[in-house]
Amino acid sequence: MERHARHFQDELDELKGRLLGMGGLAEERLRMAVRSLVDRDGRVVEAVLTGDAAINQLHIEMDDRCFKLLALQQPMAVDLRSIVAAVKINTDLERVGDLAVNIAEAVRRYLQHPPVKQLIDIPKMAELAQVMLRDSLDAYVRRDLGLAQKVLAQDDELDELKTRVFRDLLACMLRDAATIEPSLDLILISRHLERIGDHATNVAEDVIFMVSAKDVRHQ
Amino acid sequence: MERHARHFQDELDELKGRLLGMGGLAEERLRMAVRSLVDRDGRVVEAVLTGDAAINQLHIEMDDRCFKLLALQQPMAVDLRSIVAAVKINTDLERVGDLAVNIAEAVRRYLQHPPVKQLIDIPKMAELAQVMLRDSLDAYVRRDLGLAQKVLAQDDELDELKTRVFRDLLACMLRDAATIEPSLDLILISRHLERIGDHATNVAEDVIFMVSAKDVRHQ
Repeated sequence: MERHARHFQDELDELKGRLLGMGGLAEERLRMAVRSLVDRDGRVVEAVLTGDAAINQLHIEMDDRCFKLLALQQPMAVDLRSIVAAVKINTDLERVGDLAVNIAEAVRRYLQHPPVKQLIDIPKMAELAQVMLRDSLDAYVRRDLGLAQKVLAQDDELDELKTRVFRDLLACMLRDAATIEPSLDLILISRHLERIGDHATNVAEDVIFMVSAKDVRHQ
Repeated sequence: MERHARHFQDELDELKGRLLGMGGLAEERLRMAVRSLVDRDGRVVEAVLTGDAAINQLHIEMDDRCFKLLALQQPMAVDLRSIVAAVKINTDLERVGDLAVNIAEAVRRYLQHPPVKQLIDIPKMAELAQVMLRDSLDAYVRRDLGLAQKVLAQDDELDELKTRVFRDLLACMLRDAATIEPSLDLILISRHLERIGDHATNVAEDVIFMVSAKDVRHQ
């Protein structure tokens, strides 16, 4: 392998590493937001609300890095696809970080009220969203089509959970007006979790395109 | 201008035209979704729910076109930035189309109940989201920094409207349990409109980066 090519491969590996780092941060913030809800811990809420500087910084750095690779290395085929995929995945991960903030905002309001029974299926939704996020990033790094497909299947499951959460909370609100405000916040939280699943799905679709050059969106 | 360069400029102009076409479709679908709510028109709801094939098709075509330009033309500087911006904007516009579907889904449920007073500030939110979307695309085509900045300012206004809508509907629900279900749908619709504003903001930020090579996100 000539020197230029080896240097470029190093840059691509570095890019993957950074993207994983960004994914780790996004996952950690999601985990904290959910923990603040389950443990009813206002300090963790505040930590999520004020702690997005690192992921935002990484978001800008990653874009810049992808941009320089596109401009200076003029990559082709799978390398080009993996850099364009990185630009998109970077956006998705930054949005996951934003959604962790949105969840924390809802939790902050939620904690001002007595709890609504056992949070229904929300912890289950959060668990699934986290697995999807992790799997989609592993699929990117290992270029694993099977794992990417698995993420797409899990999204249907997440969607079903969201529908069930909505139905259960609506029943709660209709039965007891005192639960209206906290139930509303739980519904919003379940929507944020659903969107995190959508972002993991985007990542999985980008992986499929990167590996196979096939566009599986809208099928 | 040599022949290759002229051909490339034609391709870039074609790309802009397609992106505008995609933007027009997204805007039209948003307009229909809002009209179905205001006019309480179930047929328009169904038209939105079943009519996303064109925008999805364009989404895939645009990505493919950007990809070929990156691979074959090896663009530099502002041209490279405008193609990467097109990839991102394409994603944002497709999401706006999805959000029109989400709005229509909520309208379908909403129409099963008697109306909640005068839809509060939702038509105003919809109007503002549409203006932001149109301005952000105009800013892309005209490379107009001032217009892009205007979109960023409007997003704060949209956010305030969303907060007011939420407060008003919560008061409604607490006052009269019969409004719980339709109010919930209106809250979800206002959140979808807020997200459309977020996508217009993304586009505006991409325009600023494209024109000035400055990253204004997270400021």
